[in-house]
Amino acid sequence: LIFPPGHAKKAAMPPSDASLARFADLLGPKGYCDDPELIAPWLNDWRGLYQGRSRAMLLPESEQQVMAVVSLAAELGIPLVPQGGNTSMVGGATPPEDGSALILSTRRMNRIRDIDPEAGLAIVDAGVVLADLHQACREVGMRFPLSLGAKGSATIGGLVSTNAGGTQVLRFGTMRRLVLGVEAVMPDGRLFEGLAALKKDTRGYDIPQLLTGAEGTLGLVTAATLRIVPEAAECATAWIGVQSPQAALALLRWLETRSGAAVESFELMPAHSVALTVAHLPAGRWPIESRPPWHVLIAFVADADAQAQLESLLGRAGEEGLWTDAAIAVSLAQADAFWSIRESISSAERAAGPAIQHDISVPVEDMPGFMLATAEMVERAFPGIHASAFGHLGDGNVHFHVRAPADIAADAEQAWRDGQGKAASRMVYDLTVAANGSISAEHGIGQMKRAELARLSSPLHIATLRAIKAALDPKGLFNPGKLVPLASDETCQ
Amino acid sequence: LIFPPGHAKKAAMPPSDASLARFADLLGPKGYCDDPELIAPWLNDWRGLYQGRSRAMLLPESEQQVMAVVSLAAELGIPLVPQGGNTSMVGGATPPEDGSALILSTRRMNRIRDIDPEAGLAIVDAGVVLADLHQACREVGMRFPLSLGAKGSATIGGLVSTNAGGTQVLRFGTMRRLVLGVEAVMPDGRLFEGLAALKKDTRGYDIPQLLTGAEGTLGLVTAATLRIVPEAAECATAWIGVQSPQAALALLRWLETRSGAAVESFELMPAHSVALTVAHLPAGRWPIESRPPWHVLIAFVADADAQAQLESLLGRAGEEGLWTDAAIAVSLAQADAFWSIRESISSAERAAGPAIQHDISVPVEDMPGFMLATAEMVERAFPGIHASAFGHLGDGNVHFHVRAPADIAADAEQAWRDGQGKAASRMVYDLTVAANGSISAEHGIGQMKRAELARLSSPLHIATLRAIKAALDPKGLFNPGKLVPLASDETCQ
Repeated sequence: LIFPPGHAKKAAMPPSDASLARFADLLGPKGYCDDPELIAPWLNDWRGLYQGRSRAMLLPESEQQVMAVVSLAAELGIPLVPQGGNTSMVGGATPPEDGSALILSTRRMNRIRDIDPEAGLAIVDAGVVLADLHQACREVGMRFPLSLGAKGSATIGGLVSTNAGGTQVLRFGTMRRLVLGVEAVMPDGRLFEGLAALKKDTRGYDIPQLLTGAEGTLGLVTAATLRIVPEAAECATAWIGVQSPQAALALLRWLETRSGAAVESFELMPAHSVALTVAHLPAGRWPIESRPPWHVLIAFVADADAQAQLESLLGRAGEEGLWTDAAIAVSLAQADAFWSIRESISSAERAAGPAIQHDISVPVEDMPGFMLATAEMVERAFPGIHASAFGHLGDGNVHFHVRAPADIAADAEQAWRDGQGKAASRMVYDLTVAANGSISAEHGIGQMKRAELARLSSPLHIATLRAIKAALDPKGLFNPGKLVPLASDETCQ
Repeated sequence: LIFPPGHAKKAAMPPSDASLARFADLLGPKGYCDDPELIAPWLNDWRGLYQGRSRAMLLPESEQQVMAVVSLAAELGIPLVPQGGNTSMVGGATPPEDGSALILSTRRMNRIRDIDPEAGLAIVDAGVVLADLHQACREVGMRFPLSLGAKGSATIGGLVSTNAGGTQVLRFGTMRRLVLGVEAVMPDGRLFEGLAALKKDTRGYDIPQLLTGAEGTLGLVTAATLRIVPEAAECATAWIGVQSPQAALALLRWLETRSGAAVESFELMPAHSVALTVAHLPAGRWPIESRPPWHVLIAFVADADAQAQLESLLGRAGEEGLWTDAAIAVSLAQADAFWSIRESISSAERAAGPAIQHDISVPVEDMPGFMLATAEMVERAFPGIHASAFGHLGDGNVHFHVRAPADIAADAEQAWRDGQGKAASRMVYDLTVAANGSISAEHGIGQMKRAELARLSSPLHIATLRAIKAALDPKGLFNPGKLVPLASDETCQ
């Protein structure tokens, strides 16, 4: 299989003034920005791990303008880095350091082209912010059943290109399941028109599915057709204490058998993460008085009497000894308080000291044993480190945190990251792969995990990724340095 | 984008005796067959439209043997045609006429590797027959929720590679939705190990999804991980008369709103197809006494009281004027009788005279208007022709039949097919594409629809298919002449 020509590491030059002038002419003043101050916020990722350079940001307002931009970039040999809300967790939207690429922002492409409640479809531009789609759906009694912390910034194009997850995957799946069609500009500037939502289509290779999760390396997504569902009539929220992750999974299976798809979220947290977060939040309170070792947050949806149904189900589950303590939110405010604990764990952990996060998945049934065993092995191998996992148990996906020893000096943080932290990370990923899992469950590969992907994938898998990349983007101009391992990554193997 | 080298039409020679001897040595007597009489049944498709040639059939018993076969074929430059139950509707498993290829049968690879009711997963070899998987699931209280007429012959490998549909797509989707992992031998002989079922995985291009529906042109599927679900506790069956396809869709939406995913099948048939079939079946009877213009067959699933629930729902629907006549099956025998009408329409239509079938889809909401308008336009354009559609209304997929004039002479059939029939087919496909539909909803492209795919797809789409094919199978040895349009097809454009 072929090695992608555009992927050899070479010294690349920033685009010339003459090249920039052609983009400026093409897009006009609203569509072109080369003011360093205005561009600066878009040159690094929100975690602050990567710093890129770029001479200009292109802001096309339509798929026709994207086609023109891509054609010109192909002619000039200039790489393009697509960017929506710039909320990538893996440096997936940060331009390369050498300044060779231009940023292509989808921000001005923010039309909701169509919402069809009858058909359960929404057709939206790549630049539409997730929260705006939520609002537009709500206005017609529908909802788009995917949500995540960055919903106020993350855009549809980025969510499609990352195959994003979130807290509602249990019932509705990740973006891959919700994407029914994709429109994209391909590397030669032509428009792939794949927005028609067909429930059945056997015309060969599924290009929209190939572009989903491709991180903009094969085509620039300009719009997507998404599945939407009727607004949940009622949602009840419960906080449950259990003795172990195994007990949590048993409770989930018990509820699923008795209530079908009513359980939309099922989040698992260890007591020490909850303690940290309750202390961290200004008005933090423990949702249940007893402090069992593990905590579950449940969202339960029903057409009517959601709270009564959940109460009755949990009552029976309690009689069968499936939990140790439980509280059902009696107001929206209380439900929000429960959720704010779950959603603040990451920042509470960050405030508690330097930590490395790992977004990993294994087959669901294996997750309880895996998360306990992995935490124990990492803590044993690296004394002083604190390892813990929380997250989407029902999806087989947890965020596994490795925190530096509590007494670490501020100026020793980087050395810890590069040394013990990195070694612990490798161990987490090694164990994940040994458990048939994925080193990236919902955040993507970007630039952060490229070398680990190279290290932990079969040579065949890497060769296949490269062959597809080279076939569809032979010049290597689309989001260079993301997802597909580089030649230099091979040295890790 | 690149033109696949293996796809230029060239005079190809059958494999030499020396080459065949190497395959025979590799596979032993059970794994190798060159007896022309034994091979003969596998050289044409079951519709009898294509006749291929092949000097030998290879029957590896494991994925390791497939790897060895593929490596040897790659070394010798010999194309391979994968074959399961040989039930393709589009000549997708028939070897080329020039005898250059060998058949690779998956028949001996028929292990059910694992069925895990707790996790809702089955891992099965490519050669497992669909009905055998159904049976194995039933034994543990589960079911694999996809079924179709050829279930006694069709194999999992073929179903995955076609992205097959069937009568339960409404609730559970096509194979693409049910395939959670794929193991395949790639064209260089290496094994792609993608069986781990992860609910969340963002490691880039989804290779199992790319292999699903690829008709064996990119990799030879040797096993798949499939979603299975709890056995339906109860299933009620109803036959409903309605005035129009629009009324049928309105009834479906009404039922879905009130019963969630309980409606698992919703099949639509015109009265004349029912009449033809009732007359054709030895013990054929009209399920309802009145003979309204359109008929709907419903399968309704519930944990308890399915029949009572369906009765009550249909009662309310009747009060709202959503149907004109209805019968609920009161025994399994009656339900079977209802289904045998639906499943015998194709053979009844065939017995009524030469016809051309079209397996097409359009967006669901557009189907009622589309099927009526298309039938009318085709009948107006080709006087004497009878056009009709029946099938999976809720999936936006119908089988559209174009029947020759009733008085056609037996010896004029082929001339009709090549003349008026072909022109009528083109019209059906043109109208389908104009309605943003697919010229193949659940049968695939194979060799039958390759030229039409070339004619009716954008040059970009064809170039993308070819680029992917060339990238993963640069020698063009996997299922040659299927799916990906050939250079000679271009003349159609």
